[in-house]
Amino acid sequence: MIVAVKNAIGGGVTTPQGFRAAGVSAGIKSRGLDLALLVSGPPATAAAVFTVNRAQAAPVLVSREHLQRSGGTARAIVVNSGCANACTGDEGVRVARDMASETARLVGCPIEQVLVASTGVIGVALPIARVMTGLPIAFAALGTDQGPMAARAIMTTDPFPKEAAAHVTIGARAVADIGGMAKGSGMIEPMMATMLGFVTTDASVPQPLLDRALREAVNDTFNAITVDGDCSTNDCVMLLANGQSGTVVDETLYGEFVGGLRAVCLELALGIVRGGEGATKLVTVTVTGAASKADARRAAKAIANSLLVKTAIHGGDPNWGRLIAVAGRAGVEFELGRAAVSIGSTVLFKNGRPHDECAAQAAAYMKGKDIAVGVNLGAGSASSTVWTCDLSAEYIRINADYRT
Amino acid sequence: MIVAVKNAIGGGVTTPQGFRAAGVSAGIKSRGLDLALLVSGPPATAAAVFTVNRAQAAPVLVSREHLQRSGGTARAIVVNSGCANACTGDEGVRVARDMASETARLVGCPIEQVLVASTGVIGVALPIARVMTGLPIAFAALGTDQGPMAARAIMTTDPFPKEAAAHVTIGARAVADIGGMAKGSGMIEPMMATMLGFVTTDASVPQPLLDRALREAVNDTFNAITVDGDCSTNDCVMLLANGQSGTVVDETLYGEFVGGLRAVCLELALGIVRGGEGATKLVTVTVTGAASKADARRAAKAIANSLLVKTAIHGGDPNWGRLIAVAGRAGVEFELGRAAVSIGSTVLFKNGRPHDECAAQAAAYMKGKDIAVGVNLGAGSASSTVWTCDLSAEYIRINADYRT
Repeated sequence: MIVAVKNAIGGGVTTPQGFRAAGVSAGIKSRGLDLALLVSGPPATAAAVFTVNRAQAAPVLVSREHLQRSGGTARAIVVNSGCANACTGDEGVRVARDMASETARLVGCPIEQVLVASTGVIGVALPIARVMTGLPIAFAALGTDQGPMAARAIMTTDPFPKEAAAHVTIGARAVADIGGMAKGSGMIEPMMATMLGFVTTDASVPQPLLDRALREAVNDTFNAITVDGDCSTNDCVMLLANGQSGTVVDETLYGEFVGGLRAVCLELALGIVRGGEGATKLVTVTVTGAASKADARRAAKAIANSLLVKTAIHGGDPNWGRLIAVAGRAGVEFELGRAAVSIGSTVLFKNGRPHDECAAQAAAYMKGKDIAVGVNLGAGSASSTVWTCDLSAEYIRINADYRT
Repeated sequence: MIVAVKNAIGGGVTTPQGFRAAGVSAGIKSRGLDLALLVSGPPATAAAVFTVNRAQAAPVLVSREHLQRSGGTARAIVVNSGCANACTGDEGVRVARDMASETARLVGCPIEQVLVASTGVIGVALPIARVMTGLPIAFAALGTDQGPMAARAIMTTDPFPKEAAAHVTIGARAVADIGGMAKGSGMIEPMMATMLGFVTTDASVPQPLLDRALREAVNDTFNAITVDGDCSTNDCVMLLANGQSGTVVDETLYGEFVGGLRAVCLELALGIVRGGEGATKLVTVTVTGAASKADARRAAKAIANSLLVKTAIHGGDPNWGRLIAVAGRAGVEFELGRAAVSIGSTVLFKNGRPHDECAAQAAAYMKGKDIAVGVNLGAGSASSTVWTCDLSAEYIRINADYRT
């Protein structure tokens, strides 16, 4: 791992006290788990960030509405994989509401305390009858040890489930836990949101503070990854805080809390990149020497999305010229004569001149699975880090054949 | 062909009167032609557009300077493939000047009347000794029938040469010819310029009018294509007008001239897309219903660069949901309830509702080599067309192994 979870503990969404989860097979996908349920004992304070894609999926519309109507309170989250319920018109919204309604009946809470998420193929009608049959089975399967099943049930093309957990500590004393799960493999370039991510904590956090913490943590984690530059119609990260640890997060504990939250979000986000479609390497792109933070992020994203950079890394080719070419066309301040490129710790270009005598050293480093590339724009002192994966023929195979 | 060249004639850069060309092997590449020379009998009026990449290659810097010093006059263009002479510092600029200087000596003209271009690997020193040895050989090989050799000598990973020519006519009478050649296969998303393109005409065109005509023609042709969204350090299109036909293009003949020029540029640009790295299909993306022309172009470029769209087309999958998802995240005005998607003539999504009953018809159409996709943003009346290719595993293979 490039970045370890701060105060890492094993676990996921059911690690914090008072959360139960389930993952079952409802027949929405042709095989495998496809329906997840996450329930908090008491009503939890809830915050969420959603995709900025203008083609918002039905579950995004419904969850947003419920969050508003409940004033940021939720008892349950219901998620299906195998169908995104996106671009499905009024009928799509109706079945997303049905999903929430049946969940609310089972859990025994108002419908607006249920959040809904879907992931899978866009534009296909959700087989609601199967969801309705599956929900009571999921409800019966709820358990404090079923987080791993829920993490599996939200997967589509993901090669492995993504879970993480952390303690929030004061000194050496753990005062609250934070746990999370996420999915996402393609159509990944979150913008103010991400693919599906669900995070729980047993801290008690006032809603405005919870909302602020989530946005802050997401910005440097889920919003700093990209697999293929495509932002989905269904992205969301939801965070529930149920207060069962007895710890109340106020401004004094906020820093510790957001640190733990960021660590969990980062582990989940890096899991998404590592499990990116066809990925064989995790790539950390750090841009320094930028005129502004926005320039740094923009250049880093451009590099992370460049097919030529991603294929060079896949091929283990220290082709630093491609990194310079992307930096030069990224629409940011850039001074070739002061720019630099490094791969791992090897500097291959500096002050306008190549250092190809170091190419063999860089090529050896690139045989590894965790590749760091750095570009100094020579234009200032701001920096930004984003994460991506390499681009392989397997990505093409997966996406050329996705529906067949 | 989706778009035929208006007044198409066979030919290339030596079709207009008074132009000679040559393509020879100078040993810059490990094998094949790699040095091209294009010479006008009399000094020609010259115009050029260059890459907006901030990491401009040495030949771009030198050609820009020469064009300015000569007041837009040129006798010759010298081009090598196999090495981009980019990110090569002051030494790169020196050898680009050497290339121009030796060409000027052979042709017998001032150095500022020679334009230089290079294409190939970035960051590698140009083997100038081989260029110097090759130049007299190229000069000796110059001929009015050698345009096809020059078109071959500027290729890198291009699977075939790109040439086109057109008559400018008044009524049925041809009054001038326009011919061109281009190369480009990867790192293709021209911005205000393109990969290497060289166009000649035997019309006489005042420099300001020639410049205006080139910019106008390039905007809807070379600047409307993308292979992989990466803009190169070396892009340029150069246009020489030597007046040998006796026809003078003034404001009254401008429309005819720019029409012919656009036709030649479009044929060359589509050739670049068809020959895109790993490409098996030419994809025409038309966005309509946009709030502005800029929105239309932005959405069309986003669709044309989406890996998920390009892989779906490669796989023959009428996965219209991916088109909607890209339109929704493209940062343009977009109304899902009024949006529409078509593949070929088949409407698959309209007024917020899928029409998957037509999917089989669309899938059959997608077995073809020329695929048109249309997205109506439901937000206005502006439109734009861009061209791209599909994304195949062969692209990955080419670019993972490019330097090895």
